[in-house]
Amino acid sequence: MKTYLECLPCVVRQALEGARHVSNDQTVHEEILRRSGEAVAKVDINESPPVLIGEINRIIRDVTGSDDPYKEAKETCNQAALELCPELKNLVRESSNPFETAVRIAIAGNIIDFVVDPHADQSNVKHAVEEALAAPLSAQTLETFERAVHEAKSILYLGDNTGEIVFDRLLIEQLPTDKVTYVVKGRPVINDVTMDDAQAVGMTDLVEVIESGSELPGTVIPRCTKAFQQRFDKADLVISKGQGNYESLDEEDKHIFFLFRAKCIVIKKALGVDVGTIMLVNSRSSQA
Amino acid sequence: MKTYLECLPCVVRQALEGARHVSNDQTVHEEILRRSGEAVAKVDINESPPVLIGEINRIIRDVTGSDDPYKEAKETCNQAALELCPELKNLVRESSNPFETAVRIAIAGNIIDFVVDPHADQSNVKHAVEEALAAPLSAQTLETFERAVHEAKSILYLGDNTGEIVFDRLLIEQLPTDKVTYVVKGRPVINDVTMDDAQAVGMTDLVEVIESGSELPGTVIPRCTKAFQQRFDKADLVISKGQGNYESLDEEDKHIFFLFRAKCIVIKKALGVDVGTIMLVNSRSSQA
Repeated sequence: MKTYLECLPCVVRQALEGARHVSNDQTVHEEILRRSGEAVAKVDINESPPVLIGEINRIIRDVTGSDDPYKEAKETCNQAALELCPELKNLVRESSNPFETAVRIAIAGNIIDFVVDPHADQSNVKHAVEEALAAPLSAQTLETFERAVHEAKSILYLGDNTGEIVFDRLLIEQLPTDKVTYVVKGRPVINDVTMDDAQAVGMTDLVEVIESGSELPGTVIPRCTKAFQQRFDKADLVISKGQGNYESLDEEDKHIFFLFRAKCIVIKKALGVDVGTIMLVNSRSSQA
Repeated sequence: MKTYLECLPCVVRQALEGARHVSNDQTVHEEILRRSGEAVAKVDINESPPVLIGEINRIIRDVTGSDDPYKEAKETCNQAALELCPELKNLVRESSNPFETAVRIAIAGNIIDFVVDPHADQSNVKHAVEEALAAPLSAQTLETFERAVHEAKSILYLGDNTGEIVFDRLLIEQLPTDKVTYVVKGRPVINDVTMDDAQAVGMTDLVEVIESGSELPGTVIPRCTKAFQQRFDKADLVISKGQGNYESLDEEDKHIFFLFRAKCIVIKKALGVDVGTIMLVNSRSSQA
């Protein structure tokens, strides 16, 4: 997906929020915003939005001198999600359709933006799960998804955010784990999952975990390592979490199921769905 | 008032909205946004927000090659407001306190942003008036305002937007018109009033009308003509319409009554009032 012009004011806003999240120094905030203005001036709108957002994140890292400014917030997120885990596991176990319930819970994990509110109390998180459990979702796409999972010889599961990774684990437990590889980012970018998070929540004990090499809040294939590109090419099926991964992979010729929540007006423009919609998109929907 | 960091993403958003208002050409929109990014990178936050917004407007003018891109929208605004005029005049005439009613209607005029919705139907406009008539407003400040008006030997009334100028006329009819000078911008800037508007709505038949020389959506005294600066110095009393004028004049050592609607989060930060609040501010409130 191209970068929409609406993304430009939005990334400047994100830069301000990010700056305030990682520093209390007004001169640091101002410097981050000035350099974000320069990034807007030089943007390549033929690239996907995560490229620009990644550039903003690089600016925040450069100006603050911190390689992982969200480290503490991310740890809090994972911990909060882990505390909910037993209850969510019960929901899946007691469900008449554990696969569907786990899919819905995994999408719910994308609802909760722990960076915006790292101390979201459990009632908020539970509300997000209830919402995702009740939201309309195509039975046919769910069925196609489940069939594809069982037919695939190798599945790449592209993670998105911390906290959310715990919800991913519940879905991965419903998949043939010996065929699944979970993918984390190559280095810290905003609150995206890295190898540290995969270890912290026990994902590394469940399935193989690899790094994409990406420094962007999405999976822009040409920006990933050669090793990851080969893994991506060879995978029969990709499960992609979050809007950033959708934005960077929607034009790839690959069988991908995108699980995310529509987070902004740009997705409304691209897919015609309202902000907040629970999305399960089959990249080969004509073959569903 | 300084430019807040919140203003930076907001002006990029305004640039996009402005670009789309004045052109259908996507490459024009993109060029305007790139140059707005440069303006953000170079901003002097010690200047007031209208300086930055004026710079965005200059960019829109430069890129589109149009000196007055909102010309048609402004004419529509004035016309729509003029059609309401007889009814609003009746409201003032039949009121038990015509001065207060006219003040409230003048502030209501600031509620209606004709640039955002130039074809706002009359029911919306009437709703804005009803809101302003019912909103809380300090009786003491109103009384001080009325007394100051009658004690002043010369009054400068700083206009704000087209459409709104018709509402200003109703208030000016309640003032000693021989002492009032209405001030318009020096050249078109967004939808701010110019001499053309003053003539179109009959303001020039009612009072003296002068240009501030400002090219900004506010009244930044050092950026106005020397002739206007002298008039400003000599005036006993200033009546200032709109948030842009407030932002650029709040630190002037002058007796000013500011009539405006709080339009954004920055005013909440500066004055502690919610967005949407009807404001009548006495610059010398300690002397009220």
